[in-house]
Amino acid sequence: MSCYPPFFLYVLVHFVLIFLSSFSFTFLRTKSPYTHKSDLSLSPPLSTPFVTINTNLHVHCSKQFHSVREREREREREKLRFVVMASGGGSVEEVSNKQVILKDYVSGFPKESDMYLNASGTIKLKVPEGSNAILVKNLYLSCDPYMRPRMKQPIPGNETYIEPFKPGSPIVGNGVAKVLDSGHPDFKKGDLIWGMTGWEEYSLITATQTLYKIHHTDVPLSYYTGLLGMPGMTAYAGFYEICSPKKGERVFISAASGAVGQLVGQFAKLLGCYVIGSAGSKEKASLLIMRVDLLKNKFGFNEAFNYKEEPDLHAALKRYFPEGIDIYFENVGGKMLDAVLLNMRAHGRIAVCGMISQYNLEHPEGVHNLMTVVWKRVRIEGFMVSEYHHLFPKFLEFVLPYIKEGKITYVEDVAEGLESAPAALIGLFTGRNVGKQVVVVARE
Amino acid sequence: MSCYPPFFLYVLVHFVLIFLSSFSFTFLRTKSPYTHKSDLSLSPPLSTPFVTINTNLHVHCSKQFHSVREREREREREKLRFVVMASGGGSVEEVSNKQVILKDYVSGFPKESDMYLNASGTIKLKVPEGSNAILVKNLYLSCDPYMRPRMKQPIPGNETYIEPFKPGSPIVGNGVAKVLDSGHPDFKKGDLIWGMTGWEEYSLITATQTLYKIHHTDVPLSYYTGLLGMPGMTAYAGFYEICSPKKGERVFISAASGAVGQLVGQFAKLLGCYVIGSAGSKEKASLLIMRVDLLKNKFGFNEAFNYKEEPDLHAALKRYFPEGIDIYFENVGGKMLDAVLLNMRAHGRIAVCGMISQYNLEHPEGVHNLMTVVWKRVRIEGFMVSEYHHLFPKFLEFVLPYIKEGKITYVEDVAEGLESAPAALIGLFTGRNVGKQVVVVARE
Repeated sequence: MSCYPPFFLYVLVHFVLIFLSSFSFTFLRTKSPYTHKSDLSLSPPLSTPFVTINTNLHVHCSKQFHSVREREREREREKLRFVVMASGGGSVEEVSNKQVILKDYVSGFPKESDMYLNASGTIKLKVPEGSNAILVKNLYLSCDPYMRPRMKQPIPGNETYIEPFKPGSPIVGNGVAKVLDSGHPDFKKGDLIWGMTGWEEYSLITATQTLYKIHHTDVPLSYYTGLLGMPGMTAYAGFYEICSPKKGERVFISAASGAVGQLVGQFAKLLGCYVIGSAGSKEKASLLIMRVDLLKNKFGFNEAFNYKEEPDLHAALKRYFPEGIDIYFENVGGKMLDAVLLNMRAHGRIAVCGMISQYNLEHPEGVHNLMTVVWKRVRIEGFMVSEYHHLFPKFLEFVLPYIKEGKITYVEDVAEGLESAPAALIGLFTGRNVGKQVVVVARE
Repeated sequence: MSCYPPFFLYVLVHFVLIFLSSFSFTFLRTKSPYTHKSDLSLSPPLSTPFVTINTNLHVHCSKQFHSVREREREREREKLRFVVMASGGGSVEEVSNKQVILKDYVSGFPKESDMYLNASGTIKLKVPEGSNAILVKNLYLSCDPYMRPRMKQPIPGNETYIEPFKPGSPIVGNGVAKVLDSGHPDFKKGDLIWGMTGWEEYSLITATQTLYKIHHTDVPLSYYTGLLGMPGMTAYAGFYEICSPKKGERVFISAASGAVGQLVGQFAKLLGCYVIGSAGSKEKASLLIMRVDLLKNKFGFNEAFNYKEEPDLHAALKRYFPEGIDIYFENVGGKMLDAVLLNMRAHGRIAVCGMISQYNLEHPEGVHNLMTVVWKRVRIEGFMVSEYHHLFPKFLEFVLPYIKEGKITYVEDVAEGLESAPAALIGLFTGRNVGKQVVVVARE
């Protein structure tokens, strides 16, 4: 089958999918976002694991997106004309602005009901006079594990945690947006940006220093919530700057089908490492099978395993890494870290990106095998991508050719509409997503 | 009072002390090993904490040892003549060789009775024909925390732990010894060495690659079990190679009155860091007071505290380091590490030297606050001094001038006689020692 089907097929499938997705049906894009597998089903057999999830899974390995992007731009221009006309062309009217609001600080496992959709809000599509903020229309929002700790009540006097969300205000996170109005000299109307924005239709962004202009638009814009955004940079900086990787080394990645894990594994493979990933899910067995299959057959990992099927993680790692682990990319924490520590090789490195298994616990689990860092002379190093943004141009230079040559496979799990955002975020912690969890607020 | 009293005073006090030490009395050397405080007492008031310990505490800050060393050499030569005569001058007779034997693998808290003195052994004071081993007379033995894990039964297939001791065989550890016979071209009779030897009067050492010849003898030979041996190198490599220290940084050291801790703190002070140490003891309150006093008043730490008096270690560290900790030199593990993690500054470094609080536990305590390594971008790095021995010449070049200028204070806790070795080793884990725990097998 060709990677590039006729355009009418794309349009046809596009509308079918919009219809299906409103019923939480499933579809899959393979090879290209514009090539859709036809075996859509509610209850497929387990032997076709790619079609069993209840959100939209996109497997991208594409080279060309330009013409579709052009069409999207045209439609955006039309819509903007309408907005300006609606506001009378001169004085600015307020428009409706749906928002996802955090009700209160969250303890324990988060629930969808910890957030609510406020549909009654409005916003003026104009930056206030004299402000150097920008006014954006949000297109794609990113669901990331680090957002869970931001829901916790801050501990007075303890600056250990990153800035918490404000109850009663919209959730804040990375996203892709289009500039509708700008009081900042670096941004102008029509610019596409990615960075910190609100979980709402339109945002007035004052912290413009957290934003990056999107210059490369011949890739899907949603990539800037993942592969080309914060998770991509996290994988790049974490692997190359923290792990000090060498060709041939043995790399283990937990949460390997997630936004960051899938990329670290592929970067490691591109360098010539031996890569094994683990994945799991609290939700459905079929998701597990799909994840492990993805890791091995789409991302090209040497091996992958479902940690839920391993009663003894230490033994499992011993089996998969009989000679030990040189590099562990830590996304999980807790028992997995404990098992990994026992299997590290001399001078092993552990880059700590996050510990998703711990975020919903009031009291984090204890890690018992830290003495291994002495016996094996292991380095454990935490990092935050915010300190590596100076590497962003270098990262793009590194990754864009691989994307365009189809050497990096990227999986997105797409939730449609702002109203689906709370469920999408919670899904990260139940393990419902496969790949980067994106919320589409608007495509244009 | 002069630092250098007349020689007759030294001789007089020397014999008094030999008498006193046989009753487990206490003495203290200050400023110079040849200057003795006169306030010896079995039950001194707490206001004179330096004289309350039940082993021999030596505080050294001396510049000159030469004449005494010369006398020791002369006595050694006399004794060797006697040995040769006893063996008939030609054919080699066996001599008695007392040994400290490990009974069996140890679980839980070690006891003196886990070891026993075998007084019935003999040894020929001659290297077997054709062997490239060396035959040494052991002078000083080193008690070090890492020896406890070596008493554990090895876990089959798990190479996490360093090589265990052999039940039924003598304990093995660092020591200072004199070569009596050599089959190795690098060593000759009369050489002084330090390195891995047996807990016995004489040892046949085949692993000569672990040995270092002692070239600088104008310092007490016992220093090569500590300040100038493995603990000194541990402090040097751990601090300079792992901690990446910078002038003005805030350094915290646990087990700070121990062999390694006391040196790390002083190295940090010499670099211009702000240094706080913690100490504690399960044994006697008076030891705690002495330790804290030592840290502040002898080692020149900025502050010191008794962790036993702190119900909330996190709060204590917050009080002592309101701006957080840049460098933590980890000797303790467990709850202390957990509390430190919460108090690390951004980009802090934790050099993990050991975790003495965990060595006697069947199941190590859990460390819960590891997520801090992400929020604070902390590096935790374990190391073993055995990988830094190439730095030994550089280390001597660094440390010898400080010793000779009296800029480093060094505290030894000296146990007399091989038979006292088991108690001395156990004392490390009850916190009985103050400073480097040494066992004197023979002084010449």
